[in-house]
Amino acid sequence: MNILITGGAGFIGSHLCDALLQQPEYRITVLDNLSLGRLDNIEHLIGTEPRFKFEEVDILDTPALERVFAEGRFDMVFHLAANSDIAISHTKPEVDLESTFRTTFQVLNMMRIHGVKRLAFASTSAIYGNPQNQKLTESFGPLLPVSHYGAGKLASEAFISSFVENYGIQAWIVRFPNVVGERATHGAIFDFIRKAQSESADLEVLGDGNQNKPYVYVKDLVQAVLFVWNNTSASINLFNLGVDSRTRVSKMAEIVLEELGSNKEIRYTGGAQGWVGDVPEFEYDLSKIHALGWKASLSSDEAVRKSVQEIIKLQGLVSKK
Amino acid sequence: MNILITGGAGFIGSHLCDALLQQPEYRITVLDNLSLGRLDNIEHLIGTEPRFKFEEVDILDTPALERVFAEGRFDMVFHLAANSDIAISHTKPEVDLESTFRTTFQVLNMMRIHGVKRLAFASTSAIYGNPQNQKLTESFGPLLPVSHYGAGKLASEAFISSFVENYGIQAWIVRFPNVVGERATHGAIFDFIRKAQSESADLEVLGDGNQNKPYVYVKDLVQAVLFVWNNTSASINLFNLGVDSRTRVSKMAEIVLEELGSNKEIRYTGGAQGWVGDVPEFEYDLSKIHALGWKASLSSDEAVRKSVQEIIKLQGLVSKK
Repeated sequence: MNILITGGAGFIGSHLCDALLQQPEYRITVLDNLSLGRLDNIEHLIGTEPRFKFEEVDILDTPALERVFAEGRFDMVFHLAANSDIAISHTKPEVDLESTFRTTFQVLNMMRIHGVKRLAFASTSAIYGNPQNQKLTESFGPLLPVSHYGAGKLASEAFISSFVENYGIQAWIVRFPNVVGERATHGAIFDFIRKAQSESADLEVLGDGNQNKPYVYVKDLVQAVLFVWNNTSASINLFNLGVDSRTRVSKMAEIVLEELGSNKEIRYTGGAQGWVGDVPEFEYDLSKIHALGWKASLSSDEAVRKSVQEIIKLQGLVSKK
Repeated sequence: MNILITGGAGFIGSHLCDALLQQPEYRITVLDNLSLGRLDNIEHLIGTEPRFKFEEVDILDTPALERVFAEGRFDMVFHLAANSDIAISHTKPEVDLESTFRTTFQVLNMMRIHGVKRLAFASTSAIYGNPQNQKLTESFGPLLPVSHYGAGKLASEAFISSFVENYGIQAWIVRFPNVVGERATHGAIFDFIRKAQSESADLEVLGDGNQNKPYVYVKDLVQAVLFVWNNTSASINLFNLGVDSRTRVSKMAEIVLEELGSNKEIRYTGGAQGWVGDVPEFEYDLSKIHALGWKASLSSDEAVRKSVQEIIKLQGLVSKK
């Protein structure tokens, strides 16, 4: 089976490569423009794994994308490429229009033209917006995203749905919460480690520290994506993925300082939202994926701690190079 | 109050102009590229109504749009411009990407840049897709549109939501069902009148004639839009608009033949769906708009008959010119 992974040099995409290559029948092509993805994440595969191919291509470059699809004869696409920095687009909404949404339309249209019939899509809990005290199942509505990132992902889901109906494509739409683990390039854990290692006297945390969200370990998440793909067969298979525990931002900061052996003070900037578009309290319903037979192996706190450990370990390896 | 109406030379947009101009405090600018809209619809206003201005501009022409916003100092935007031919984009999905969705993003972005804080958006029942036997309230989910038109409108709603949160815009999102009445340029009634007047021996109807949907009269719909706008004040005000009765396609064909005094036979092509992306049975929940205090004045059958009469009358006027 020939599989295309867009954003495959990114944080989650590169772990997906590793997991899929465990199966000898899969040949993987990674497409990434390296704007957020990094060669480091896949350098252990390039030139050493014959079933792995890397294409440095921007999805919005239609002729280049056309060539990759013509050569690749793909049976399946995992579309992960997107802007992954939610806060940045407040001042530049075009970022999520282009990188989060229009990339999806480009992939869908190329699948239509080349007759590729299966798509897995990395959606997000951000499409739910910021509803208070509600049970966020897959059938929750109305969907009123507060970030352009969430809007771009919901817009993507919308066109995936119409392409499924119009061209007989089959889709797996999996909504991710916060994801943590080695190879992460941004996000709260990464910021806290950087700040804890900086020269500033204290560790600054945006907001009041009470933001409380589920953090899933990246390798758990990738297993969930493959589990859904392998165990469902409707024309559209829509699942919340995640972990049924949460970690407060204050706890995360404490774990970072513990693991670094730092005795810095934590200083909160205050306010419920860390930044415009932040969703301070978030928990969504995982009954559907649990009923299908999958659960995360690590709790949210365990995932955060493991991520901190892995990022620190990787820094050690990098600094010894 | 300075009001911009995009798509204001179109079927629904031109009726909205007429209704808003009833209020002496409103000054209207219509922006339309005349690809679907028609000067005929607003010729009674151009040059005669000093509070009315027409701009032949394509929303995707950013410099031209920029000029209209700079000159207009708008307090309020009614964004109606869109592709309105649902069936056409099966072979050209880019049509709804550009005309239905990206027009919305352009309007939103221009509102952000020019500090325009209020937006009413013409959404659609097509965002609900084709769920069977379910109560389609405004909080129904998941939203899985089957047409690219529905996808483009849902994608628009998504970015409206994120722009509301990010820039303090207030939005009225009103979801329309099938709309009928004078100035319609396409749709089943229009097709049936044309076919009934053609030289063919019978009246061909796509599908089995059992498609059953609510048809709201355009002037009722426009009143509903203004009613919602004037009577709600949340940051996002989301309403299904319509009529709580339905008309079968077979009945619509009979009404057309009756009103034309034609004795043609009706011939059905068969199949539940008239075309790919068609939603054969559709009824949505209007509790929310009814609770707000609005109901349509004409039933679906009455709206269909009135539309047929008005279109035939207009043909008579045109042919006498």
